[in-house]
Amino acid sequence: MVKRYDSTKINDLIYNIYQAYGFSDAQSHQVADMLVYTDLHGIESHGVQRLVMYDHFIQNGKIRVNSKPKIVKETDVSAVVDAHFGLGQLNGIYSMNIAIQKAQKHGIGIVTTRNSGHYGIAGYYANMAAELGLMGMSSCNSRPAMLPTHATKALVGTNPISFAMPAKPHTFIFDAATTTVPQGKIEVYRKLEKDLPALWVAKNGEEPVYDHTDDTDFDLLRDPDANVGLAPLGGVTEDTGSHKGFGLGVIVEVFTSILSLGNVSNEITPEDLSVGPCQSFVAIDPAIFGDKDAIIDKFSRYLQDIRSLPAVPGKTIYVAGDKEALAYEENRQLGIQIDDRTLEEVESIASRLNVDYAPYI
Amino acid sequence: MVKRYDSTKINDLIYNIYQAYGFSDAQSHQVADMLVYTDLHGIESHGVQRLVMYDHFIQNGKIRVNSKPKIVKETDVSAVVDAHFGLGQLNGIYSMNIAIQKAQKHGIGIVTTRNSGHYGIAGYYANMAAELGLMGMSSCNSRPAMLPTHATKALVGTNPISFAMPAKPHTFIFDAATTTVPQGKIEVYRKLEKDLPALWVAKNGEEPVYDHTDDTDFDLLRDPDANVGLAPLGGVTEDTGSHKGFGLGVIVEVFTSILSLGNVSNEITPEDLSVGPCQSFVAIDPAIFGDKDAIIDKFSRYLQDIRSLPAVPGKTIYVAGDKEALAYEENRQLGIQIDDRTLEEVESIASRLNVDYAPYI
Repeated sequence: MVKRYDSTKINDLIYNIYQAYGFSDAQSHQVADMLVYTDLHGIESHGVQRLVMYDHFIQNGKIRVNSKPKIVKETDVSAVVDAHFGLGQLNGIYSMNIAIQKAQKHGIGIVTTRNSGHYGIAGYYANMAAELGLMGMSSCNSRPAMLPTHATKALVGTNPISFAMPAKPHTFIFDAATTTVPQGKIEVYRKLEKDLPALWVAKNGEEPVYDHTDDTDFDLLRDPDANVGLAPLGGVTEDTGSHKGFGLGVIVEVFTSILSLGNVSNEITPEDLSVGPCQSFVAIDPAIFGDKDAIIDKFSRYLQDIRSLPAVPGKTIYVAGDKEALAYEENRQLGIQIDDRTLEEVESIASRLNVDYAPYI
Repeated sequence: MVKRYDSTKINDLIYNIYQAYGFSDAQSHQVADMLVYTDLHGIESHGVQRLVMYDHFIQNGKIRVNSKPKIVKETDVSAVVDAHFGLGQLNGIYSMNIAIQKAQKHGIGIVTTRNSGHYGIAGYYANMAAELGLMGMSSCNSRPAMLPTHATKALVGTNPISFAMPAKPHTFIFDAATTTVPQGKIEVYRKLEKDLPALWVAKNGEEPVYDHTDDTDFDLLRDPDANVGLAPLGGVTEDTGSHKGFGLGVIVEVFTSILSLGNVSNEITPEDLSVGPCQSFVAIDPAIFGDKDAIIDKFSRYLQDIRSLPAVPGKTIYVAGDKEALAYEENRQLGIQIDDRTLEEVESIASRLNVDYAPYI
């Protein structure tokens, strides 16, 4: 059962929980804002729902509460950050702010961050740049999830690419795994008892379609030694473009783990406390290319031309960011949507930390 | 019928043809090298085969022989180039060299070029950076070809993304349209009388599969007013990731036409001599992030780990650039492959320009 909750109150509750873990006032606000932003924009898989996973990692020491990210190499337009296994969101905000400052001063900033943690939706960081009138990009690697084209074992992560660019009436935000779907989407389909479409899962060079009652391979999707995994964007055959999703995933690996000399996907496991994912952050000031208002106006008109195309009957043409903007308007007014199980998990965490949750839900 | 020809002699022949058009010695060498590089790497659709298209545009004035690309705005890390409708390859080499020089001096260079022409394979320009130990990227927009998700008319171009990164034993080069396939691949399948796979063509929100005898929609694929066009990478439904290929295509549009304030896809037609496609060029020096040798070694090991995964029986796991490296070895020794019809077209162009082709073929 999914119910709606006041986003300001949930923000306060998360703030209190992170204060109780030992994070600073500013840090606790950053995490709470980031997770509630995610739910407000309708991406429930990566918002409050993730508290339980972070709680697990804070308890077992994979996330180190007192760690601080530090710049280990820097130029006018670039930086390498070692995050020392701090909370991913804090590393992300710290790193993106460096990219933004460099872009504001020198036009471009590229930051690559190693020894980080799960940082939620990549688009949040890209949007930080767009909020300041800049273009933003962010990506992360992850443990093995994707089967490279023609492989029967996973190696590359789900490696999302996010890109944000100011536009009217709202920011263009693209945020997509380089697999056809991320792991979380399969879990959502199972909860909803929906059959899985083709091109989601790869198994021995084929694209099985799973009946909603068929549990055969699901536990194996998180097992890097299984012969089943997520299909790249484009499926499993070159005919449908499998090599393109796979190649894009490898490019994400370059900007995250390779340039930072951090852990590549096949070194990452949830159990090993001495390895962590890597992330990249890019900010670019459009003003280095031309009049910023003219650029944003031109882009906004182009997006509107796309939205105005004739559509398949019963369908709406959305450009990246449109659905999230609609969800934001709705959830801001009606409250963010949290399922009962997630709420119980949050209550349980709060209780253990002696945080009074009753006033907030 | 396809035969093999000595690549050095074909290079000389193209050089002579471009000299006869009125291009300079250096320019003629640049075009010849670029087109022969393409054939040597097994991408025959974009090599010598394209001479006839460029010939048409040189004759009707869409390509202006005496135009020179010029920088119209510049910072330490960026430039905007107005190509004044010169030959696309020359604009591309000029623009990528600016990006490379900026990366060599300041770590990063981003160039966006407007009023250009068809510039062949995007990967050629990305590879120019990799040849010098840098990371390279290039993209271009084009006239409408892709149907945005849920649209029944084309608007976005095939908008390829290319990325090159030095690696051992050879450069990683990714070069892919953001449609499932480019127009040229459909033409190749028709010549070979092969049925078209699903996810290539979009029509009224569906993914028709065409029997090799079925000509119904092919002429319409180049008609922006038809209800048929190329499907984005990921097909036509959100279930299979259609919005991802579509979104990537729009991001390419940003870096090409939007930042350069040039022509967006839906302003471009082959007939209108006053509009031209736009391109982007990025070079990044990995040394700004860390020891270059360590970065390249780490990347090379990662690629080798992928190649060494267990594979589907009868299949080989290739990473981006592997097939092109194999084709290069073969074609360098045995000659590049040119079909009879293309050869006749080249002979006809040479004859008209009073270039003696007999010694070269």
